[in-house]
Amino acid sequence: MEKIEFTPIGEVTELKGPYPDRQPFSDRRETILIYPEYAEGLMDLEPGRRIMIVFHFHLSEGYELILFAHGLQKVTGVFNSHSPRRPNGIGVTEATIVSINNGEIVIDEGDMFPGTPILDIKPC
Amino acid sequence: MEKIEFTPIGEVTELKGPYPDRQPFSDRRETILIYPEYAEGLMDLEPGRRIMIVFHFHLSEGYELILFAHGLQKVTGVFNSHSPRRPNGIGVTEATIVSINNGEIVIDEGDMFPGTPILDIKPC
Repeated sequence: MEKIEFTPIGEVTELKGPYPDRQPFSDRRETILIYPEYAEGLMDLEPGRRIMIVFHFHLSEGYELILFAHGLQKVTGVFNSHSPRRPNGIGVTEATIVSINNGEIVIDEGDMFPGTPILDIKPC
Repeated sequence: MEKIEFTPIGEVTELKGPYPDRQPFSDRRETILIYPEYAEGLMDLEPGRRIMIVFHFHLSEGYELILFAHGLQKVTGVFNSHSPRRPNGIGVTEATIVSINNGEIVIDEGDMFPGTPILDIKPC
């Protein structure tokens, strides 16, 4: 099967508040840096807007097709779960823009670890 | 910048109804085949469930950071648009499962062309 290659457009540079595996989400602020060569593509994104962030679960290794999903508290399929240990380690999160300046975006309620490679941003 | 590689877990095998660039979405049915080596990961996904499908815009080449967004009818940044011509050609769509059998999933209202490589499926 042919592989598909992507190149990160940015990364998570700062996380304030509880880590992604800790509550509450609402106290968290994350900073994403979009690299200068891509920053022009952020035109019209402003504070208050909801965005979808596509990222790479860079800390996860391997996967299981059947797993115990903590959110559901049961054994289920990986595609019925949000486990980071998936055949392709792609995460998708939605958040609100708190501020955006020169390619640096601060978001509310993200769930990514510092250093996470960002693959894409889309409007919700 | 280090590249990140993914391997498709399946593909769109059939599209009935209007193509993704044509309305109405509601008349469309798409069939996704999840390859046998990954099909076990679909456990507990059933008709009526909403899923998020992460796919590769395999027909798109190149990108522009500033573009004319047809949905918005204005010039804007690629990350404020759903254009398939993006730095990383990753698409995300949400749909309802109509049927699911042996790794073959029929969905309502998808927007992928036949042959589209599927990278991930997550619960909504």
